Amino acid sequence: MIDRGRLERHIAELSAIGGKGAAVTRLGLSREEQRARTLVGGWLAARGARVRRDPAANLFARFGSEGPAVLLGSHLDSVPEGGRFDGALGVLSAIEAVESLLDLQAPLRRPIEVVAWADEEGARFGVGLFGSAAAFGRLAPGVAERTDRDGVSIADALRSLGEVGDPALARREPKEFAAYLELHIEQGPRLADAGRALGVVSDIVGIYHARVTLRGRADHAGATIMSARADTLAGAAEMVLAVERIARAHPDGVGTVGEIAVRPGAKNVVPGECVFSIDLRAARAHEDLVRWVLAEVERIAHTRGLQSSVDELARVEVTPLDRGIALLLRRAVKDVGVDAELLVSGAGHDAQNAQLSGVPTGMIFVRSSGGSHTPREFASLDDAALGARALAIALRELAA
Amino acid sequence: MIDRGRLERHIAELSAIGGKGAAVTRLGLSREEQRARTLVGGWLAARGARVRRDPAANLFARFGSEGPAVLLGSHLDSVPEGGRFDGALGVLSAIEAVESLLDLQAPLRRPIEVVAWADEEGARFGVGLFGSAAAFGRLAPGVAERTDRDGVSIADALRSLGEVGDPALARREPKEFAAYLELHIEQGPRLADAGRALGVVSDIVGIYHARVTLRGRADHAGATIMSARADTLAGAAEMVLAVERIARAHPDGVGTVGEIAVRPGAKNVVPGECVFSIDLRAARAHEDLVRWVLAEVERIAHTRGLQSSVDELARVEVTPLDRGIALLLRRAVKDVGVDAELLVSGAGHDAQNAQLSGVPTGMIFVRSSGGSHTPREFASLDDAALGARALAIALRELAA
Repeated sequence: MIDRGRLERHIAELSAIGGKGAAVTRLGLSREEQRARTLVGGWLAARGARVRRDPAANLFARFGSEGPAVLLGSHLDSVPEGGRFDGALGVLSAIEAVESLLDLQAPLRRPIEVVAWADEEGARFGVGLFGSAAAFGRLAPGVAERTDRDGVSIADALRSLGEVGDPALARREPKEFAAYLELHIEQGPRLADAGRALGVVSDIVGIYHARVTLRGRADHAGATIMSARADTLAGAAEMVLAVERIARAHPDGVGTVGEIAVRPGAKNVVPGECVFSIDLRAARAHEDLVRWVLAEVERIAHTRGLQSSVDELARVEVTPLDRGIALLLRRAVKDVGVDAELLVSGAGHDAQNAQLSGVPTGMIFVRSSGGSHTPREFASLDDAALGARALAIALRELAA
Repeated sequence: MIDRGRLERHIAELSAIGGKGAAVTRLGLSREEQRARTLVGGWLAARGARVRRDPAANLFARFGSEGPAVLLGSHLDSVPEGGRFDGALGVLSAIEAVESLLDLQAPLRRPIEVVAWADEEGARFGVGLFGSAAAFGRLAPGVAERTDRDGVSIADALRSLGEVGDPALARREPKEFAAYLELHIEQGPRLADAGRALGVVSDIVGIYHARVTLRGRADHAGATIMSARADTLAGAAEMVLAVERIARAHPDGVGTVGEIAVRPGAKNVVPGECVFSIDLRAARAHEDLVRWVLAEVERIAHTRGLQSSVDELARVEVTPLDRGIALLLRRAVKDVGVDAELLVSGAGHDAQNAQLSGVPTGMIFVRSSGGSHTPREFASLDDAALGARALAIALRELAA
């Protein structure tokens, strides 16, 4: 049974850690995240779980004995000035699902592990999906030496939490897990727009991040005729519009230029240098999207006589989630009265690391008004309880 | 006679004040500018001028007695990390022209005043053409209270130079002057491209400065489909290209977006706010240029569902210089062997304040490689001496 009152209390107690008004600041590998793990671990231990923290600061709580476990959970960290639901709701729904199954007092066909992944957001060290990457052996080499703005490394941060400072030691074998289930608020408006409380994720998009630098010539804005200019901002403007046009034409792509800066940056000087970011995502034909945009960047720079260089910062492949698990989750969601669409996740999730490591993985999205990564993100108690019930049904089918 | 050696020495001595390598930092109303005035005033006093500083810190050196004077000069201040020629060459050429005339020992038909205007660049207080505006009664009300980054006002700066702190007291009557001549380096590449040492200015462009603020919606770059966005940077990009397109289509306009900033400014967030500058200049139909661009800004914002607001920061009318003086300068330039084109000045000059007050005004441009407002600005000694000779010829025609 989903206990709405308990779920509401848990949300409130967890939000108090790092909370200020509606805003929550609970960065990955911080003391606040650690306090959140201690709180949640206590609840799970009280229900009889064997609770442990691994060398990457992930929290695992295991019920049942031998064999491949059904893993479920999400993360407890937030972005700076984030909200109460991103990540947290997935961990608390996992607790409700487990409580619901234990209430049945039926023997477990498979063990269950509830997980709270450490530092999913990567807000402090710039390494997103950190804890799940460590557990599934997908950390980039040398990542423990990445530092925050104060020069503190991931290894240092882990040591100050009582770990040895080597997140690679957290590695587990994919065959330890029969499946991974994650519930998360939707980070866009599709469920809200469609008037649906829940959705099931079919794929997680591929993501390409790059920084483009254009070099032209800084000239006096009054004394340089239009035809004699090598204006990098005008070039960048064409590229921004190319990103938009190509993403619109792509079957399901999105493209964003979110950062831009010009030098020297004076109102009466033609910008001689311009640097901007490109973020390209798609669940299908992601490579095409990236290739088309880069070709346009090159063409526009060439036409305008600008030098361009593209630094690739990240490229994450498209992750199709497990079709069998998706069908199971759709039935579970239908059982609670929602005719769920299959949605593509436009944001990255720890579920990627599980799926890409070979663990059959599925995700449920819960409607959020107000988006995510903001104090305005909001999942109603009705929707949250509905999501937890669907997760419980899926868990019962997999583990009981 | 133009004394090339003396001109070269003067350039070197003046450049040493505020100089560091090829760079000169001699801000308006600073101690460096004051030292430059003292140096130049000393040279002129030694030649028999009555030298005085006015309440706006302008330096005047008068030769001859009663009646309307022929005024000639430029300014001694620079931008931060500027060059050795912008402004300074005009004052030093005026000295050479006067020396040349005095060498003739002919009686003066009209008195002559050499002027070094204070704070032409406006780099410190944001008030360009300060000294000439004060002398010609064209200061904006309250301008003496404008402060620099440290909270020091123009009035404070004047007091620390020994003045009473009221620049309006510098006002003189236009009828005190029969003409104003100013020699200045060209701030663009037209003379250098045409292979000509000198040019004569026909008009000074009208200038429009504004700050445009666009408000849309900050959204998650992955979770927000293209059609659901209100992306202010994409809107700004269309506007940047509209500025470029309209300026290109205009008979002689230039348009520049030199500053741009987005918020929140993260690679994975659609920019919810964008602020950028617009600089529009033209010698003809300037009002049309401004009106066309503002109409496009409004249309693009409307089409994209963005809120836009335009803050006008400055609007200076087109200044046609005196046709008679321009003809006289063209003849003088021809006498030194240059078939001068009439050029439009794309930058503002103190000459505007003289002309707009009714003083017949003309300008000679000297070729500069490397532009202006940079340590790379450079007028050769040959070109500088040629310019001073042409100025001397014009001065003789007006005053001897």
